[in-house]
Amino acid sequence: MAVYTPVDEAQLERFLRQYAIGELVSVKGIAEGVENSNYLLQTTKGGYILTLYEKRVHARDLPFFLGLMQHLAGRGLACPLPVKGRDGQALRRLAGRPAAVIGFLAGVSVMRPRISHCAAVGQALAQLHLAGAEFSLRRVNALSVAGWKKLYASCRRRADTVWDGLQAELDMELREIARRWPKDLPQGVIHADLFPDNVFFRGEQLTGLIDFYFACNDLLAYDIAVCLNAWCFEPDGGFNATKGRALLSAYRKTRPLSVAELAALPLLARGAALRFLLTRLYDWLNQVPGALVRPKDPLEYLHKLRFHRGLSGPEAYGLT
Amino acid sequence: MAVYTPVDEAQLERFLRQYAIGELVSVKGIAEGVENSNYLLQTTKGGYILTLYEKRVHARDLPFFLGLMQHLAGRGLACPLPVKGRDGQALRRLAGRPAAVIGFLAGVSVMRPRISHCAAVGQALAQLHLAGAEFSLRRVNALSVAGWKKLYASCRRRADTVWDGLQAELDMELREIARRWPKDLPQGVIHADLFPDNVFFRGEQLTGLIDFYFACNDLLAYDIAVCLNAWCFEPDGGFNATKGRALLSAYRKTRPLSVAELAALPLLARGAALRFLLTRLYDWLNQVPGALVRPKDPLEYLHKLRFHRGLSGPEAYGLT
Repeated sequence: MAVYTPVDEAQLERFLRQYAIGELVSVKGIAEGVENSNYLLQTTKGGYILTLYEKRVHARDLPFFLGLMQHLAGRGLACPLPVKGRDGQALRRLAGRPAAVIGFLAGVSVMRPRISHCAAVGQALAQLHLAGAEFSLRRVNALSVAGWKKLYASCRRRADTVWDGLQAELDMELREIARRWPKDLPQGVIHADLFPDNVFFRGEQLTGLIDFYFACNDLLAYDIAVCLNAWCFEPDGGFNATKGRALLSAYRKTRPLSVAELAALPLLARGAALRFLLTRLYDWLNQVPGALVRPKDPLEYLHKLRFHRGLSGPEAYGLT
Repeated sequence: MAVYTPVDEAQLERFLRQYAIGELVSVKGIAEGVENSNYLLQTTKGGYILTLYEKRVHARDLPFFLGLMQHLAGRGLACPLPVKGRDGQALRRLAGRPAAVIGFLAGVSVMRPRISHCAAVGQALAQLHLAGAEFSLRRVNALSVAGWKKLYASCRRRADTVWDGLQAELDMELREIARRWPKDLPQGVIHADLFPDNVFFRGEQLTGLIDFYFACNDLLAYDIAVCLNAWCFEPDGGFNATKGRALLSAYRKTRPLSVAELAALPLLARGAALRFLLTRLYDWLNQVPGALVRPKDPLEYLHKLRFHRGLSGPEAYGLT
């Protein structure tokens, strides 16, 4: 959550001459996204986000991410539109980094989503899944079962330093989730990280989805599971089934869920909880002194995981 | 250079109802200023900066800072204007911090100032000194000679760990500068921190001065000395006398300098170099693990200090 790569104004003005987006009026480094350097530009033509892609984003994935945003925006989804330069290219380099200029999206993310926000995000997620259907590029989900195993292998020995008993519990979880992980559910392009800070609203109205830098091809229902975890738990740890119902009902009105997808939800939500538990655990155990980002509590996701593990079926999510 | 205090959108919207500045469209945490949390707000009426004052700014100084900006903006100086709420107050509280909404200033700061930028800043500084003349509040410069002594006392023992011989050199400098520090030069409101990141331009045109949170009452010529250090040295350490001349000539066209002020410049510039050397030394020796700001090199200012010490008169600054 910070600017990593400084860009001086002369360099920036030279860079912007490659675009037809007017003259630079103002530039502010913004605290948006944890992976990249982001600047909010005001030009005589409007607002733009300038993103410099830092190490954690692989350059080989950028055509997928930028192409996906273009594809989705072209199909009417409220998401940032990469701006092409005069040469027709959206991806170029600045200050030694891959860089892109992206249209500014109005709206404010909500820290404490209300029921109406959960419904709006359910609908937008289904629209994303439908709009992504014909996108031609593919990207494997590096953070699915195989990725979790690799990540866990690098944390396992020290897991109990974070919470006593965590190692045994994660050994068991990972084994069981991997064994039961579904293979034959509908697949497509998923956002994979649709947390409240990646969704903008004005009032109750959803104005945009941002941060497609974990997007990939995977089970569509897994994306719903990520959202149930991110949107429907209360700060006290309780699952709010009214929010779950709002999210799922709105989703199903746009893209109906099969019986198999519904039945798989508890396992998928458990897997989604494990995924964020593991990346948070990794970040927790590998804090860089002087780092700009304070790691998030991995145990929040252990509690979510346990909730899903205890369910006998998807009804607990508020299904009607 | 970071957002320290998070503000959630519901809290922010309640806060903004105290102002007549329209509906919130967008909010971004921005990396501006090292002392405070800053957010760039877009509302249906325009752009604003929301500042939450963190610990390093004393709440008792805020009426001086905000009042000064109002005073200067009212006299036509290009500086941020604090926005008064419906109750007539500019200063209130948000998220447990003193907070203010301030008008957005267009423009971009230049990392490598050119001669024309130095002239523009010289002129603006003189305008600031004239416009500040009738401001009624007063604030002692906490970072003048007495403040340097205090700061140095807390660093002295470890000075040689940064650079061998630094302690002896600073002992001597502080003694000599304190002994010779002028007392009878014209005083008034000074900015005291007018570095390139605190000045906005559009092209060659200066559009605003920002960050008045070190402003205080002190020798006006000391403020010029701060600017000579901040604007007229090249990245290789050399003093660019053409830039010095541009800055001083432009200043003198708006506010003439007395013979005594000119004669004092080398000593004032030496003191100004010592001031930034000492705060940087302190920050260098007191790095907080996990801090959001990387400290700046104190030795840059040792080299500047030595340059001024070696001068026989102010002519070396490019005076005509």
